[in-house]
Amino acid sequence: MNKKETFEKYESEVRSYCRVFSEVMTTAKGSIIKDENNKEYVDFFAGAGALNYGHNNDYIKEKLIEYLKNDGIIHSLDMFTEAKEDFINYFEKEILEKRNLNYKIMFTGPTGTNSIEAALKLARKVKNRSNVFAFMGAFHGMSLGALALTTDLSSRKGAGVDLNNVTHIPAPYMFKNLDVINYIKTILHDDHSGVEKPAAIVIETVQAEGGVYIFEKKFLKELRELCNEEDILLIIDDIQVGNARTGKFFSFENSGIVPDILTLSKSIGGYGLPFSLTLFKPELDIWSPGEHNGTFRGAQLSIVAAKAGLEYMLKENVEKEVERKSKIVKDFLKSINSKNIVDIRGIGLIWGVEFKSENQSKQVVTECFKNGLIIERAGRDNVVVKLMPPLVIEDHILLKGLEILKNSILKLE
Amino acid sequence: MNKKETFEKYESEVRSYCRVFSEVMTTAKGSIIKDENNKEYVDFFAGAGALNYGHNNDYIKEKLIEYLKNDGIIHSLDMFTEAKEDFINYFEKEILEKRNLNYKIMFTGPTGTNSIEAALKLARKVKNRSNVFAFMGAFHGMSLGALALTTDLSSRKGAGVDLNNVTHIPAPYMFKNLDVINYIKTILHDDHSGVEKPAAIVIETVQAEGGVYIFEKKFLKELRELCNEEDILLIIDDIQVGNARTGKFFSFENSGIVPDILTLSKSIGGYGLPFSLTLFKPELDIWSPGEHNGTFRGAQLSIVAAKAGLEYMLKENVEKEVERKSKIVKDFLKSINSKNIVDIRGIGLIWGVEFKSENQSKQVVTECFKNGLIIERAGRDNVVVKLMPPLVIEDHILLKGLEILKNSILKLE
Amino acid sequence: MNKKETFEKYESEVRSYCRVFSEVMTTAKGSIIKDENNKEYVDFFAGAGALNYGHNNDYIKEKLIEYLKNDGIIHSLDMFTEAKEDFINYFEKEILEKRNLNYKIMFTGPTGTNSIEAALKLARKVKNRSNVFAFMGAFHGMSLGALALTTDLSSRKGAGVDLNNVTHIPAPYMFKNLDVINYIKTILHDDHSGVEKPAAIVIETVQAEGGVYIFEKKFLKELRELCNEEDILLIIDDIQVGNARTGKFFSFENSGIVPDILTLSKSIGGYGLPFSLTLFKPELDIWSPGEHNGTFRGAQLSIVAAKAGLEYMLKENVEKEVERKSKIVKDFLKSINSKNIVDIRGIGLIWGVEFKSENQSKQVVTECFKNGLIIERAGRDNVVVKLMPPLVIEDHILLKGLEILKNSILKLE
Amino acid sequence: MNKKETFEKYESEVRSYCRVFSEVMTTAKGSIIKDENNKEYVDFFAGAGALNYGHNNDYIKEKLIEYLKNDGIIHSLDMFTEAKEDFINYFEKEILEKRNLNYKIMFTGPTGTNSIEAALKLARKVKNRSNVFAFMGAFHGMSLGALALTTDLSSRKGAGVDLNNVTHIPAPYMFKNLDVINYIKTILHDDHSGVEKPAAIVIETVQAEGGVYIFEKKFLKELRELCNEEDILLIIDDIQVGNARTGKFFSFENSGIVPDILTLSKSIGGYGLPFSLTLFKPELDIWSPGEHNGTFRGAQLSIVAAKAGLEYMLKENVEKEVERKSKIVKDFLKSINSKNIVDIRGIGLIWGVEFKSENQSKQVVTECFKNGLIIERAGRDNVVVKLMPPLVIEDHILLKGLEILKNSILKLE
Repeated sequence: MNKKETFEKYESEVRSYCRVFSEVMTTAKGSIIKDENNKEYVDFFAGAGALNYGHNNDYIKEKLIEYLKNDGIIHSLDMFTEAKEDFINYFEKEILEKRNLNYKIMFTGPTGTNSIEAALKLARKVKNRSNVFAFMGAFHGMSLGALALTTDLSSRKGAGVDLNNVTHIPAPYMFKNLDVINYIKTILHDDHSGVEKPAAIVIETVQAEGGVYIFEKKFLKELRELCNEEDILLIIDDIQVGNARTGKFFSFENSGIVPDILTLSKSIGGYGLPFSLTLFKPELDIWSPGEHNGTFRGAQLSIVAAKAGLEYMLKENVEKEVERKSKIVKDFLKSINSKNIVDIRGIGLIWGVEFKSENQSKQVVTECFKNGLIIERAGRDNVVVKLMPPLVIEDHILLKGLEILKNSILKLE
Repeated sequence: MNKKETFEKYESEVRSYCRVFSEVMTTAKGSIIKDENNKEYVDFFAGAGALNYGHNNDYIKEKLIEYLKNDGIIHSLDMFTEAKEDFINYFEKEILEKRNLNYKIMFTGPTGTNSIEAALKLARKVKNRSNVFAFMGAFHGMSLGALALTTDLSSRKGAGVDLNNVTHIPAPYMFKNLDVINYIKTILHDDHSGVEKPAAIVIETVQAEGGVYIFEKKFLKELRELCNEEDILLIIDDIQVGNARTGKFFSFENSGIVPDILTLSKSIGGYGLPFSLTLFKPELDIWSPGEHNGTFRGAQLSIVAAKAGLEYMLKENVEKEVERKSKIVKDFLKSINSKNIVDIRGIGLIWGVEFKSENQSKQVVTECFKNGLIIERAGRDNVVVKLMPPLVIEDHILLKGLEILKNSILKLE
Repeated sequence: MNKKETFEKYESEVRSYCRVFSEVMTTAKGSIIKDENNKEYVDFFAGAGALNYGHNNDYIKEKLIEYLKNDGIIHSLDMFTEAKEDFINYFEKEILEKRNLNYKIMFTGPTGTNSIEAALKLARKVKNRSNVFAFMGAFHGMSLGALALTTDLSSRKGAGVDLNNVTHIPAPYMFKNLDVINYIKTILHDDHSGVEKPAAIVIETVQAEGGVYIFEKKFLKELRELCNEEDILLIIDDIQVGNARTGKFFSFENSGIVPDILTLSKSIGGYGLPFSLTLFKPELDIWSPGEHNGTFRGAQLSIVAAKAGLEYMLKENVEKEVERKSKIVKDFLKSINSKNIVDIRGIGLIWGVEFKSENQSKQVVTECFKNGLIIERAGRDNVVVKLMPPLVIEDHILLKGLEILKNSILKLE
Repeated sequence: MNKKETFEKYESEVRSYCRVFSEVMTTAKGSIIKDENNKEYVDFFAGAGALNYGHNNDYIKEKLIEYLKNDGIIHSLDMFTEAKEDFINYFEKEILEKRNLNYKIMFTGPTGTNSIEAALKLARKVKNRSNVFAFMGAFHGMSLGALALTTDLSSRKGAGVDLNNVTHIPAPYMFKNLDVINYIKTILHDDHSGVEKPAAIVIETVQAEGGVYIFEKKFLKELRELCNEEDILLIIDDIQVGNARTGKFFSFENSGIVPDILTLSKSIGGYGLPFSLTLFKPELDIWSPGEHNGTFRGAQLSIVAAKAGLEYMLKENVEKEVERKSKIVKDFLKSINSKNIVDIRGIGLIWGVEFKSENQSKQVVTECFKNGLIIERAGRDNVVVKLMPPLVIEDHILLKGLEILKNSILKLE
């Protein structure tokens, strides 16, 4: 049987990315993926942001193989392990303390949606309120609690039940004359707004799935202040744009604010292995033992890769590198002369090129794939082509990918 | 800093197992875990059922290291990959076809709760009904959709919101004179029961967390028949007792029934790596592309381990071995002469010893740990000590563990 | 235009009773209704229990006309009025104190469903729990809060949203070998039942709409005791069977128990005028002013009729009379020799005759109407013909109605 | 016992208006209420809008007494009656047809909240969607379905459960630069808004409880158009401002739009008797028989009063009179020279005077009562004093009330 037939026959229709990226992949290195015909693809998708340090990063790989060879604990649930102890100490000292951040670490199930579920439970428990605010355009996951925050229609339709206890707030870029901070304050203070006071406001500082919208520093600062004034927890979902994607390890460093609760996943796993963390200020740590658990919350191989990933990031000055490459991407994109480009938005190494129609964006990504570039779409009606290469991409590969993208755009009529 | 201090200072209070198993673990092999002082522990916990083939199984390990060395795809979301194709073909041919099962495979996020969320969404979508039946005593996960099924009070309390759209049905062992099948039929047919017809009935054939209760073949057959008659989907959650734990690969093989939807996690990952599957009859595959997604649904290393694990299982006749060892455990437990044992229940290599009080069960597991046995509690008020060794445990280690358990029980007054 | 055409053209399809009782009614007196052709009907329906003292009771009528003539306050919301003061004093002295009952009175909107909504709000507020238990077979009203308690499928289907925060408990008559008190206790104490502890248990001592099922004294006493032990409020919905319908003013007097919250409507209005009360123990009165309000909560004409109705009831020894007539009905029904009668159940002046099929019960009520008897159906599949004459019905009219019923039954094949 | 002691001892703390209007009322006529000491009060409250034709209107009273004397049907549930037939014909011919309106009539339980519950059920059933939009500032009732629409915090807090399936839209007066029609369109068309498409948008054309805010014609027209374009039902709640309160029988006549569903209560009962209607376009009449029912949906005395009330209204040219008196009120209020008045808003005979603080508004109504004027507060923080006299108020009484109000305002410092 032809390989693709295997998938068509046996894999559920829910499969998605393979519908555009329709070849069978075999190996990968850095920013390059190879298919079974040995064709190479530049990867501007990076596992939806899970591969900030590139595919099969040798530094991390070595640690993984060594750990496996030594029969290090691979699974132990949330028992104490040496690997976990090493990770915690490294993360606290090299990441948190250096940024004057004081968080307790919760090892949740190793998926982003799970870290969000944990964050929601904790916030509701701490504040004893059931409502939560999220922003229009948000994506926070697919399990029922997180899905109630997630905004895209097709995901929500899958729920099969009403999604409750979340109020969606207009994103600041949606209505030009609406001061969103004032909007939130008003509905909180209005004793006739009909909107329940939330336990927390959940925000991505960059709405990636929403179409690459960057929330401005000023807005984030005012939101932080508002949360303080109103006794509301601020949860930042840094699952997609954390781990230096924006040029700082935590995306909120750009604005100088500090969330009360913070979710990490995707690239925190270092090597593309499933891993998630929920961090929160120590005074919020009112969990009962095991109150939120899960079999894979102690995936040790991910923990090993996570620490190695952080080491690599610091060693290679990835944050700085992102800033430098960001300029390359920005200048390149701005130089493309196409009447079909509606907007170009981005920060660090996440950029969006917005087209006039879903049709155009689809033509672009399809043409890109044909020519050796893996790149995805996002946003309303999928009109945004989203660039998210590994942060460690070499300049010439970055430029090669950009060239393919440019040519695909210029082929549009 | 003392290692445990690291955890106490930085890890959330939500940590649980480490409170009983309070040493720092370093390496593991087969059924033995070692702590930092080189003390050995027999493992009757097996990563809550994620390590059916033992810790760091050499057969699987070799495949993992080889795959890593060759820079096989580690993360690609749901693109086509060689590793995935190999797994699908192997699983379909060697596991499903051999059992005359015809299922489509959905790669969900790699946690059990995620596979349950997917199953619930699909069932509700297919039947266009929001209610689902679950059994009292059930545990199906901690994200909001799955948590609504899960019954234990402490987990539910963590939700912070009302848990809706689930009706809990008394388990057959709860009320002696209540015919549960008749109960379900009655409330479905009664136009004044107030209970909404469900899209699905979700069941564990063995309630593991509920206290090791085995649902009888007759009951399961009648339930299957009832679901057929009433146009309700039957979902079996084989996350904990699948993968040969009961002596058959799928726990429902013992009863001859076939579920419409099936969730697998834990040991399907082979090596303790995060992995989950939701299987369903092809005619139910009405998902839209990407309608339930997740970054780690294509964790390739888990897929590699999963295939290797299946190969190992078949090669080593694990199913047969489980039957043989089951008798050893049963006979040993029945021979313990203690007035404090209320009941002994089990099948395959999952056994529960029920004590008179939470206090007693706690004394037993604490004493066991002191003497080199890792074993957990489950069930109402945690009165059941649950034996769940790796299926590949050597006889002498099994007996060693049983001896430690026996001595700990006999120390009770 | 033919009168019925008016209704068919302009009144919503939601109209129901008029589909069986399909003549245009003009006047009524006591237990007799007349249609526009002057045909007389014995009324065994009594406005679904709202006319315990008969149609257009002269004693009450006189008070109403006098009050109208004197321009007594007709509407004043919940201001203090003389009429209300008189009612409160009379009700407290003659009804409550005589029965050693100590309740605060809440004048809710003048419908049964509204008094239930108030009861639910108060119970949830007092206990700070969202769940409530109701019994399968229950009917408590049609607004969303009450509807969640109500069990019949067709009512629930109308909701258009999920009905949450209620757990339905099997009624004692449903499963022969199930001890329902033990069932409730078990699921409350089982930390793995998945059922949230309720703020209250709501019960009708006689399920009227459910098919005339009388809850036994022993059961009610045990339920009361259970509520005490478990810190749960007991709410009795006496809307249909209060006001002496069972032979005692409050239906629960038969069993000697006292509910914490009590809802009254229907016949408390005396003359068929809209009126409702929610009564509760003084220590539960933690309402904030206006926290549950409504324009017609102070319908003064209903209040005037309510007091007059109570005076009439006491004057005429209605409770005693009900007991006497109950025997007449019982003996008569038991003497009907029909193989189509499955069961006869009743208390006071509410009786149900259960037939083999919906078809049979429909034939009976249709034939009755043709022959001058208004009588309705209830219960599962509507198989129960429900006798509910005014309590003040004269013996010869009662017997005339019974004869018509008997003949209609005997016409069944 | 002192009369007030009766209330304090026996009536629930939920009582509200009587806390300000703290005398015991005895009789009333037209726009004057008398207390037990024979003190007269001008009534600018009019039973919260239930007494548009004045207290104890002689024209209606005569019909009621006649009907009572003749033993007309008082209660018959939804059987056909002569009184109902007369009402339907009159209402269709004289009210609806004259305005080119084509509605089916549903007799719901006789409270406003019940007519809203019916409207919500029908809309959700017709459109098969669970969400409904309501406006911030709205008040639609206190039973659970209606309460989810209602916005004031203190009412919502009473629910005791989460209020779901409603999205609250900012009212047009809340954010100066926000085009609310565009806001609604945007969130409906945005596939990432997270807001479910509603079955209906519910609106009061004048938010009375919200603080007397009049929705502009232009806004209502655009909203009607938007509903057409988006396949959403428009529900107008005319419970408080229907029955000529705004100068037209239906408040929406001012704007020329026609709702799909319409709720009436309060003054439709003519004499202050409980009565409610839900009207809807014939094509929406997909109710099953009895799908929404209730014992008092056929309160015949209310029906008699309702018809007489309409006759009176037409006979007396009430609509025209309202226009004339509206100018009197407006001019008077505008002439009051007080720095404490923040805003004056109104239409027809509903006017609001907004003060700087809750304290001021409270002083005003308390002083008014002392000086013989019953007038209530509304709106955010209760800062609005709401004038709502009977529509038939004589000019000199109107002016007397206005003078008392003015003097009370001028007493503020």
